[in-house]
Amino acid sequence: MGQMTTRRPVLRLRPGRSAQRPDTLAVEEPLLVRVGERILTSTMRTPGHDFDLIAGWLVAEGAVTDRTDVAGMKECVDEQNTIEVTLAHGVEPPRARAFETTSACGVCGADRVVDVRASLRWRLADDPTRVDVGVLSTLPDRMRAEQRVFDRTGGLHAAGLFTTTGSVVTVREDVGRHNAVDKVIGSALMGGLLPLSGHVLQVSGRASFELVQKAAAAGLPVLAAVSAPSSLAVDLADECGLTLVGFVRGGGMNVYTHPERVRVAV
Amino acid sequence: MGQMTTRRPVLRLRPGRSAQRPDTLAVEEPLLVRVGERILTSTMRTPGHDFDLIAGWLVAEGAVTDRTDVAGMKECVDEQNTIEVTLAHGVEPPRARAFETTSACGVCGADRVVDVRASLRWRLADDPTRVDVGVLSTLPDRMRAEQRVFDRTGGLHAAGLFTTTGSVVTVREDVGRHNAVDKVIGSALMGGLLPLSGHVLQVSGRASFELVQKAAAAGLPVLAAVSAPSSLAVDLADECGLTLVGFVRGGGMNVYTHPERVRVAV
Repeated sequence: MGQMTTRRPVLRLRPGRSAQRPDTLAVEEPLLVRVGERILTSTMRTPGHDFDLIAGWLVAEGAVTDRTDVAGMKECVDEQNTIEVTLAHGVEPPRARAFETTSACGVCGADRVVDVRASLRWRLADDPTRVDVGVLSTLPDRMRAEQRVFDRTGGLHAAGLFTTTGSVVTVREDVGRHNAVDKVIGSALMGGLLPLSGHVLQVSGRASFELVQKAAAAGLPVLAAVSAPSSLAVDLADECGLTLVGFVRGGGMNVYTHPERVRVAV
Repeated sequence: MGQMTTRRPVLRLRPGRSAQRPDTLAVEEPLLVRVGERILTSTMRTPGHDFDLIAGWLVAEGAVTDRTDVAGMKECVDEQNTIEVTLAHGVEPPRARAFETTSACGVCGADRVVDVRASLRWRLADDPTRVDVGVLSTLPDRMRAEQRVFDRTGGLHAAGLFTTTGSVVTVREDVGRHNAVDKVIGSALMGGLLPLSGHVLQVSGRASFELVQKAAAAGLPVLAAVSAPSSLAVDLADECGLTLVGFVRGGGMNVYTHPERVRVAV
């Protein structure tokens, strides 16, 4: 597994002084995923937990829902940053997204929401998961405590999977926040945890359409972000039955969809 | 042009109280770009300045370097969120990236750096642009002052183009930081400003490989980020002759590459 951090010289300029010294940076490297000779996807990512990254990406694409759907993965010895995936018999690799081949009438957010909802394997609307507002408000700090690379670089997104009592299941860091989420969900897939009823996914930044899609594809009933959601993230969460929480900070938060899962102390 | 913000109901939970009220969100919507019948690219973006977004993306892809390379763009009347681009005679649309079709020996960051460097139209190493550290330290606040949508939503990335004396040329906001950069560079292309010698690009978040690539493709000699760069962002900037600055905050900053362009007061 590649290094997650590396060192480069930096000129530090501070008011009234300057110094040349080495600085620790988060590593960003390409990753290529193959099924046989076919390239499935490529991404820029921070090395580490690459198998989980790919497994989580396959979940988000709707290709796999159980660890037995993935027959194997191996690093290609002669090909740098390349991983070959073997899917179980009968499991189809993800197609190019319909979005990219388009329809005659163009694209709109509402269509994409409908498309994602139709592709989901788990039905979230009836998920009985409940979580205390007091637990939710602790998750950013709990995640931060596990961010070992961020401490040294100040430069990584994070995603953390927690139980509804606030216990850490997995925290992953990456230069790409979608990668951090894929790594967490891939780890859960390989651990036999899907669908992730009874869990909360906390992310370090904003909540986009893509992150809500990834959470819903993994059967996660609650997604909490430190910062703001986008309009389409809210629309998708609403439609999928997912509880979307934003601005988790200072003991407060905003609940955008399905607030019935958030228990407020009286 | 679509709206940049929209309203959704939100349950605001604060210690000891809760309230239901409308909240303003940044809009996220898909955009599809066509050349004739062929889909060039698709992205999730905040509506607004879509022509600039596409023009900037074409610059980053190496397809265009002058406004005359773009013969026209039009919104498709019958197709939502779809824009048709007409390139000038002799200008080729971007190919699928070599990265995605792969080489026999896999991919690595060093290869990608070499590929990008070889594709650049402008030579940055000899660019004589200089900028005072005092000017650089003011850019995040100057950009922030122009972020009208962020003020209402707390949820947008920004990119700002400045002169070396700190005058604002363009500030753009988007749910995707790569889009904010494309919008700024596309605006500069259409204004006949490329290559962007004598300018500084300030971005609100981190500096990734992709953002350095976009800056270098536009002939920008200085890229400054509020937060950390990745390893590959530093390697690419070093190789391309671009000055990469990170952690611009509190009057200080870190200069990762080509510090000769940053003038420090004595």
